[in-house]
Amino acid sequence: MVTGPRASRAEATRALILAAAERLFAERGVAAVSNRQIGEAAGQGNTAVVGYHFGAKEDLVRAVVRRHTTRIEGLRAEALAATEGSSDVRDWVDCLVRPMTDYLDGLGPPTWFARFHAQLTTEPAYREIVTQESLSSPALLATAEGLDRCLPDLPAEVRLERGDMTRLLLVHVCAARERALAEGAPTPRTTWDATATGLVDALVGLWLAPAAAPATTEGDRA
Amino acid sequence: MVTGPRASRAEATRALILAAAERLFAERGVAAVSNRQIGEAAGQGNTAVVGYHFGAKEDLVRAVVRRHTTRIEGLRAEALAATEGSSDVRDWVDCLVRPMTDYLDGLGPPTWFARFHAQLTTEPAYREIVTQESLSSPALLATAEGLDRCLPDLPAEVRLERGDMTRLLLVHVCAARERALAEGAPTPRTTWDATATGLVDALVGLWLAPAAAPATTEGDRA
Repeated sequence: MVTGPRASRAEATRALILAAAERLFAERGVAAVSNRQIGEAAGQGNTAVVGYHFGAKEDLVRAVVRRHTTRIEGLRAEALAATEGSSDVRDWVDCLVRPMTDYLDGLGPPTWFARFHAQLTTEPAYREIVTQESLSSPALLATAEGLDRCLPDLPAEVRLERGDMTRLLLVHVCAARERALAEGAPTPRTTWDATATGLVDALVGLWLAPAAAPATTEGDRA
Repeated sequence: MVTGPRASRAEATRALILAAAERLFAERGVAAVSNRQIGEAAGQGNTAVVGYHFGAKEDLVRAVVRRHTTRIEGLRAEALAATEGSSDVRDWVDCLVRPMTDYLDGLGPPTWFARFHAQLTTEPAYREIVTQESLSSPALLATAEGLDRCLPDLPAEVRLERGDMTRLLLVHVCAARERALAEGAPTPRTTWDATATGLVDALVGLWLAPAAAPATTEGDRA
């Protein structure tokens, strides 16, 4: 194992590359950005440096994601510990939403992660990377179970679809706010905290909404 | 103007190219697909044919979007005419959701438009194309106004953010269902109609949810 000045120089280079990659991916699109452009933006003279440190683009994308998800998982675990035992839907929705908005708040401004992340979820070539990362979050799974326990009468398919909707809204509301901030466009709320409050209010309504169509009548109009 | 067999042959070629482009964009990602690949998938021997008919990639993307939005706008106008005068939130949410789900239902299976469309909304290089298209939909604007009239007491910023959330959910719930169908993965609901019902149920709850944080206390926790 390489240690000392050489190892810490390599670490610093990796950090520069990850930061440059994330910014370019968010601003121009993951598929549109080359390793060479990332190397240049990271101030590296040797254009092979990105491949040397990270291998294929998919591995670089995964490394950018991990840099964040590890820390977000820590915030999720803290929120979960503070929420355990609650039977209030709002507490659990808070526990789903605030680790992400607090994390973005703490990072920036400016931030790039929310746009980058949202892009990955819709991009066929990279989607699996973020899906794997979120499926492997023990705190996120435990939070979803906590919310489920507050709503024992909700039919299984409604629970599933509202879980999907919650994840979609969290990802894309954060990305939309980050994009508006980057473009100097107006935002409905002035802070990440107020954005979280607005999203939690809406999601509590979404989860508590009666399910008008029981599963047995599904497809009647199809 | 060219008419007769030559014009209709050109029309047929354009239709083949648009269909191939949409499928490849949805399956592999807009940025990852070349004009040459689209030409080949459309069965065209001449690899310059895509550029000849559509110009730059951005113009091709816009043409694929328009092929759908023109028809969706027709469905939106019909739904609007049937809903005018209602003061029921559910009727207006139905009016926002069902033109899209009914359209996808009528197209397929399989469909590619929902994934392609969702991808464009998160892709920096192409995002503006779909934003322009939806901002220029008179029926969509009139429907949003109809919903607003049912909820006169909702603060302006809450109205804005819930409007954004509604658009995000519509786009990404449809894309998620389409993706699951394409991959043979399980879906919470068995039909597009039941998917619409589940989404409408949830959105009615979202719109009717009390706004816990008045605008004046925004940022207190920031």
